[in-house]
Amino acid sequence: MPIAQAIDDLKTLLGERVSLSKSDLDAHGASESYFPSTPPQAVVYPRTTEEVRDIVKICAKADVPMIGWGAGTSLEGHGQALRGGVTVDFRHMNRVLEIRPADMDVTVQPGVTREALNEELRATGLFFPVDPGANASLGGMAMTRASGTTTVRYGSMRDNVMGLEVVLADGRVIRTGTRARKSAAGYDLTALMVGSEGTLGLVTELTLRLHGQPEAVSAGICAFPDMNAATACVMETIQMGIPLARIEFACAQTARAFNAYAGTDMAEAPHLMVEFHGSPQSTEQDAERFAEIVADHDGSAFRWSAREEERRALWAMRHNGYYAILASRPGARAVVTDICVPISRLAQAVEATQADIAASGLPGPILGHVGDGNFHAILLVDPDQPAELDKAKDLAARMATRAIQLGGTCTGEHGVGYGKLPFMQSEHGDAWQVMGSVKTALDPQNLMNPGKLVPSN
Amino acid sequence: MPIAQAIDDLKTLLGERVSLSKSDLDAHGASESYFPSTPPQAVVYPRTTEEVRDIVKICAKADVPMIGWGAGTSLEGHGQALRGGVTVDFRHMNRVLEIRPADMDVTVQPGVTREALNEELRATGLFFPVDPGANASLGGMAMTRASGTTTVRYGSMRDNVMGLEVVLADGRVIRTGTRARKSAAGYDLTALMVGSEGTLGLVTELTLRLHGQPEAVSAGICAFPDMNAATACVMETIQMGIPLARIEFACAQTARAFNAYAGTDMAEAPHLMVEFHGSPQSTEQDAERFAEIVADHDGSAFRWSAREEERRALWAMRHNGYYAILASRPGARAVVTDICVPISRLAQAVEATQADIAASGLPGPILGHVGDGNFHAILLVDPDQPAELDKAKDLAARMATRAIQLGGTCTGEHGVGYGKLPFMQSEHGDAWQVMGSVKTALDPQNLMNPGKLVPSN
Repeated sequence: MPIAQAIDDLKTLLGERVSLSKSDLDAHGASESYFPSTPPQAVVYPRTTEEVRDIVKICAKADVPMIGWGAGTSLEGHGQALRGGVTVDFRHMNRVLEIRPADMDVTVQPGVTREALNEELRATGLFFPVDPGANASLGGMAMTRASGTTTVRYGSMRDNVMGLEVVLADGRVIRTGTRARKSAAGYDLTALMVGSEGTLGLVTELTLRLHGQPEAVSAGICAFPDMNAATACVMETIQMGIPLARIEFACAQTARAFNAYAGTDMAEAPHLMVEFHGSPQSTEQDAERFAEIVADHDGSAFRWSAREEERRALWAMRHNGYYAILASRPGARAVVTDICVPISRLAQAVEATQADIAASGLPGPILGHVGDGNFHAILLVDPDQPAELDKAKDLAARMATRAIQLGGTCTGEHGVGYGKLPFMQSEHGDAWQVMGSVKTALDPQNLMNPGKLVPSN
Repeated sequence: MPIAQAIDDLKTLLGERVSLSKSDLDAHGASESYFPSTPPQAVVYPRTTEEVRDIVKICAKADVPMIGWGAGTSLEGHGQALRGGVTVDFRHMNRVLEIRPADMDVTVQPGVTREALNEELRATGLFFPVDPGANASLGGMAMTRASGTTTVRYGSMRDNVMGLEVVLADGRVIRTGTRARKSAAGYDLTALMVGSEGTLGLVTELTLRLHGQPEAVSAGICAFPDMNAATACVMETIQMGIPLARIEFACAQTARAFNAYAGTDMAEAPHLMVEFHGSPQSTEQDAERFAEIVADHDGSAFRWSAREEERRALWAMRHNGYYAILASRPGARAVVTDICVPISRLAQAVEATQADIAASGLPGPILGHVGDGNFHAILLVDPDQPAELDKAKDLAARMATRAIQLGGTCTGEHGVGYGKLPFMQSEHGDAWQVMGSVKTALDPQNLMNPGKLVPSN
């Protein structure tokens, strides 16, 4: 059956909520980073699980690929229609279905963004902590196993998704997990789905773990004479057991980009941005103990504040880091790297990366979630100079290989998509083939986001 | 090829480390709970990953089932050789391979027990927190996704296994996970293997997350007039955000069993046993805030202590709970239940369970990890009275069904084995068939611990 028949069937199902307009197709073929545009043949906008199920059945019958789409903030080309097909955009499935304060959990549709959820939660005293820089959809965050600045304390999507409703490739609708805080009842299908990037099914509902809004928060920033001093300070803080809620690194180039973008007056030096959650006493104590460690490593005075507006300004700046860096080279596209290494290897990894960037001559500001050993070099390339893109990709490949050699991973939080496919074999060995076997078992027609994550796909 | 040939080949490989003695076979067919003995045809004792790989290849060639064996403390018959075959006992693979204090992780062989690991870690300032009552092997704990008294704070095996080496059914040896604190690089095979109960492969190495030994600890115990008061106190403590390291419940019958077994003088009333980890100040504050909540719920004075020997006595008593309860009816066998429900449903679940136990006339002391919503009724039956076993199994089935109806699970931490198989369909629906598909993809001959966890197996 040709795709034309599938599109007719989808129109019968969804009416106006099937789009074939060029602008819509192009918007869903685009990427936040350097990948070329690869639009789908149609975009559909379901409102219910039943509609998603019927979309899947129509596409499966016609052998048409299906690609899930959240907020479109992926950096590894997850949403691109490499083999054409139908993009399933979840923007209308954006309801918070049930908040259960006594159980500290919530059930949402996949199109709810993390900011929209926290807006709804504000009055409950609870919040959802996982915060990639972008205002991503929670469905997309689950599918890429996203994390962010607070992961050092609250974990990633791996730790905060309790259960899912998933439409499988054959149209079956399954529920994974329970609302109990733990379970030993069989394979952890929730964990299998989190990070599966739409290659095993389309998520139509998520139950998420919530956390109490901290009674008190203190946050601050400090500069270091060099990168090694900053990473040594991170390691010592972690080993002292000081409970960090956030610890973010920004290199001198990044500080310069912040200054230009946000009008700040940061020294052009490596910085740490730090936050503590707890009681008024504990957060003050934590900040003071941290300040002592900073001083021991020749850092600048640790300026900290418990005032909400100062903290908000600090983290808004951090969350705009990617855009600030992009703006530092007008017209540039970004090759974003995302390596994560054991903490003991962090200084070594950052140092080798900086030397590599310096040798390349490309702008490559670094920022990252150093409490987890995860950092990003954002390599800025002129899209009209293919040699620059090649150079950046080579550099990113060396970073990934180095991370794997150091016992780490080519992607701490952005996922595989197709940008990180070339490193999967060396990171996982035969385990990558096992991922392929799981994929084939659940999607024998290879229609769920083909060309991503698994081998020969 | 008959099993005789496989046994010959195993003898060539392992020499004296293949056992066919009746006592050895019987020991590996036995169970800690009520299941009848089902011995394997041989027991093998590998020393290396390569030996495990060769065992698997020999057994696969001869179509012989393989069953992993750790410390033999399973309560759901995980280790029983339902279809005969070869039991792979990991007792000689009991080395701690590498402790990395800077990264707060450790790599161990599967036969290391949790107590042996913590003994080795003592001088490092680190510890491994997951503590099922028994001194289980870490391989067995990973395979059943074990948890215990500290899970409310430190998580279960799901949260504390970073990576595995696994011998698959076809003899391939894979590594899952990395030593980075997080990764988004493809399907979470570590999480898929944790809780897979040996049905997808045999674990030969584990990398585990460690935690800093708390600077200060306070612990204590208090009694309540009734179960509802105790569970209300648990809920309020959690909602207040008081950071519990442990919060354990024991019913009046359990208190009586403790008194008889350990010579304590607990009131025959529901009790909570609680522990806080932190700084000297914070643990004192936490204990005092908790004492206020206890008083608000008509609890007895909360007697707490920061003294190590008092705390050790308290938790030794708790960890011997199962054996104390068994001893309270000499000669009895136990049908152990393990339901886990959302915290908001805990009081309802405990109340309904107690009414059901009272109506049955069986002894059924309750104890559990109430901070996670997980509790056990230990139903004591006379092994010579089949009617008692039937009655207990019916009661356990009603508990499981009730937990599932309340949004929870039939097993919070003991796993499925074959004891909980009858509840998998109602807990998971079609997701259970998906587990079966994953199993078939990785073990098409169905030789890895057959008869457990998945459907029609």
